[in-house]
Amino acid sequence: MALPSTETSRHDNTLAVIRTLRDQGPVARVDLGALNGISSATVTSISTELLQQGLISERPPETPRPTGRGRPKTLIELNAQAACVVCIKLSINEIQLVVGDFTGQVRHSEHHTVSTLTLSADDLAVLLEEKIDAACDQLLGGFQRLAGICLAVQGVVSSQNGTIIWSPALSFRNARISARLTERFHCSVLLENDANCIASVLAAKPDYADCPNMVVIMLGYGIGMSVLINGVPYLGANGSAAEFGHSKYQPDGALCACGRRGCIEAYASDYALYRAAAEHLNLPAGDSAHPSEQQMQALTQLAMNGDPAAQRIYAEAGRALGIGIANILALFNPDLVLITGSGVRGFDAMQATMHHAIDEALVAELRGTTRIESCAWDRDMTCMGGIAMALNATDGETLLESQTAREA
Amino acid sequence: MALPSTETSRHDNTLAVIRTLRDQGPVARVDLGALNGISSATVTSISTELLQQGLISERPPETPRPTGRGRPKTLIELNAQAACVVCIKLSINEIQLVVGDFTGQVRHSEHHTVSTLTLSADDLAVLLEEKIDAACDQLLGGFQRLAGICLAVQGVVSSQNGTIIWSPALSFRNARISARLTERFHCSVLLENDANCIASVLAAKPDYADCPNMVVIMLGYGIGMSVLINGVPYLGANGSAAEFGHSKYQPDGALCACGRRGCIEAYASDYALYRAAAEHLNLPAGDSAHPSEQQMQALTQLAMNGDPAAQRIYAEAGRALGIGIANILALFNPDLVLITGSGVRGFDAMQATMHHAIDEALVAELRGTTRIESCAWDRDMTCMGGIAMALNATDGETLLESQTAREA
Repeated sequence: MALPSTETSRHDNTLAVIRTLRDQGPVARVDLGALNGISSATVTSISTELLQQGLISERPPETPRPTGRGRPKTLIELNAQAACVVCIKLSINEIQLVVGDFTGQVRHSEHHTVSTLTLSADDLAVLLEEKIDAACDQLLGGFQRLAGICLAVQGVVSSQNGTIIWSPALSFRNARISARLTERFHCSVLLENDANCIASVLAAKPDYADCPNMVVIMLGYGIGMSVLINGVPYLGANGSAAEFGHSKYQPDGALCACGRRGCIEAYASDYALYRAAAEHLNLPAGDSAHPSEQQMQALTQLAMNGDPAAQRIYAEAGRALGIGIANILALFNPDLVLITGSGVRGFDAMQATMHHAIDEALVAELRGTTRIESCAWDRDMTCMGGIAMALNATDGETLLESQTAREA
Repeated sequence: MALPSTETSRHDNTLAVIRTLRDQGPVARVDLGALNGISSATVTSISTELLQQGLISERPPETPRPTGRGRPKTLIELNAQAACVVCIKLSINEIQLVVGDFTGQVRHSEHHTVSTLTLSADDLAVLLEEKIDAACDQLLGGFQRLAGICLAVQGVVSSQNGTIIWSPALSFRNARISARLTERFHCSVLLENDANCIASVLAAKPDYADCPNMVVIMLGYGIGMSVLINGVPYLGANGSAAEFGHSKYQPDGALCACGRRGCIEAYASDYALYRAAAEHLNLPAGDSAHPSEQQMQALTQLAMNGDPAAQRIYAEAGRALGIGIANILALFNPDLVLITGSGVRGFDAMQATMHHAIDEALVAELRGTTRIESCAWDRDMTCMGGIAMALNATDGETLLESQTAREA
C-alpha cells in the first residue's frame, strides 16, 4: 500500500537524516535541519522517534572552551549497534567477507582462498551460507539485527533477478543466488557487479563531485567497468552493460579468457600481460593463467627497470587500453575516466602509449574535455562500496523493523 | 518564481491534455480524463480555458448510428492554427525546411541545394534567417504565432549552449547559432543532433514500446547514432556522446573523413563504400568524395546483382558495422539496435557479415537478447522528429502566451 504523501515525506526526511549522520558523523540537530532543508520542529520530532527506536543516540556536549559563547550543542549520532550488513566480494580463487555496522564502519574482515572455478552453484551457496553464519554467530551478539547482504561479483549479474549470469571466477552460469540467501537470512540481498561497488565509493569523493557522468575502469585479472550516468550505475537491458574488457581492440586478435578474440582484456589484463611475457622473460613460476600479485609485481618491475621485452608488452597493453578508452569517449563522452584496480600497478608503464593512442584515434572535438586519471588501488574498496550500498538499500526496512519492535 | 504546487499540477495536467490531443487526434473529454488520470471536473475546467485561449476547438458530434445508444460525445481537438514550428535539417550540401502546425502535421516542406562546406558561420546564420523569414511571410497569415524552431544537424552539437561543435556538413567549428536565431525570431530554438530527432520518431512507434534502451544507427554519407536511455537521448558531458561512426574498427585502418584512421565510418559510410569501389568498378562519375543517391544506388545494385568486387566491399562494411555493434552491445546492452538512414539501401549486402562479426566477437552472455533490426528510411523522418520535439519544448510557452493574450 502506498503511504499518504505527508507520511512519504516524513519517511524521506527520516532517511535523509540517517544518511547525513552516516556521511558526516555526529551532527547537531540544527545542522541536520540546515543540511537537509527540514524545519527544526521536524528534525526534533524525527530525532525523538529515532532515539526511542534505538537507531541514534545523543552525545553529551563537550565542556565549552573558555572563549566559547552560549550553550554547547548536543550532537546526535547513529547507534553503530542498531544493525549490521555483510558484504561478500567474490573474485577468482578468493572470497572476502566484511561486516559493516550501522554507521558504515568496517567491524570485521576476513579473506578466504577458495578454488572458485571448481564450485557448483550449490557449493557456492552452501559456502556463502557457512561464512555468513559463522560471522553472524561471532558478531550478532553486538548488533540488533542483520539488515542486509551485498554480494559483489566480478562479471555479469542481473541485480534485478538476483542472478549471476556469468563470472570469470565461476565455471557455472545463470545461478539465482539472491533468493536463496534471502530465504536463509531473512534480509534483503543485493547482487552487484564489483565495479559498481567501487564506483559508488569513488563517486562520493570530493575530487569527483563535478563528474556526474563517470566511467571507472578496473584493471586486474580481468578488466571491469562501471558507468555512472548522473551518478547512477548504468546496467543496460539485462545487467551486462559496461563490459569494457570485452569490447574490441583488434578483430581476430589475441585470445581472451571469454573464448573470443581481440578483446581489450586479451591485451591489458594481468593474465594477458603475463602470458605475453612468459615466452620471453624469466619470471616467477606458478599458474601463469592466473598470475599472483607477486608474479605481476615481478613483471611490472622488469618493465619499470627498462627491460625492453617487458616494456613492449606494457606498451601494447597501453595502446589497447587507449583504443578502448577512445571508444568510450566517442560513445559516452563522460566527464571523467578513472582507471583503478590491482592492475593499476603497471599503469606507469602503459600510460604513454595509452594517451598516444587516444590522441591518434580521436579528433579534438571528440576527445573533448574528459579527464582521464588513475587512482591508487585499495583492495577493500569493493567491500566498502558494498556495505554503503547495502545500508542505503536497507535503511527503510531497518526503520520499519525498529518501529514495529517498539510498538510491540 | 516557482509556481505553488497546485498550479504546477494544473500546468502539468494542461500540458498532458495538449499532448494527448496531439498524439491521438480528436478525443472526448471523458477519455482525456481516463487517459491522463485526471478527474472529469479538472478536464472540463482545463478544456474551457483552452477553448477560450483558442488552443483547442470542439468538433460537433457526428449523427449517432441507428444502433448507437445515448447522446453522442462532443470531441475536442487541437486548433492546428494556434501555433506553428519550423524544423531545419542541415546536412551536407542540403537544407530541408519543414513547417509543422500545432497538431504536429507538416504544412510545408522545401529542399535547397547549398554548398554547405563553403559557408562561414555568419553565412549560415544569414541563410537560415532568410529561409525562415520567407516561410513565415508565406505562412504566418494562417498561424497565430511561430512557437519555436528546431535545427537538426549532422554531427556534434551542444544542445545546452546552442552551439554546433563540429559537423561534417560545415567547415567551421564551435558556432553559437541558437542565440542568434532566438534573438531574430523571438522564439525558443532547439539545436539537436539529427539522429536524436529520428530516434524520437522511432521510439514512439508501437513496435518498439518495450525498448526503453534503444540505439539508432544512421547509415548515410556519415554514420550517426542516437542512444536513448529510458527513452531519453543520452548526450554525455559536452553533447558529443553516441559518435558511433568514429568508434574504431581497425586501429591504423582506412582514412576517415574526420582525419583519423580506422573509424567504422571509414568502412561503412557512403563515401567509404564509393571510395573503395571507385578503383575497381565502372560507376557513374561525379564527386566521389560526396557520392549522390544515384551513384550509391548504382553501387548497391552491382552488389545485389552479384558483382564480386562490390560484394566484397559491402561484406567488409558489414564486418566493420558488426564489430562496432558488438562494442555497443558490450557497453550499452540495449534492448534494441535499429539500423536506418539512407545507407540502409545497402543493408541486404552487409547484414550476413555483420551478424557473423557480432556472433564471432561476443559470447552469448554478452550478445544478450538485444534485438538487431533495420528500418526503412524516410528522408522526412528527421524533420518530423524535430517538429515533435520543438512542439513539446514550446507547449508551456504557447500556453503562457495564449493566457497573456486573453488577459490583455
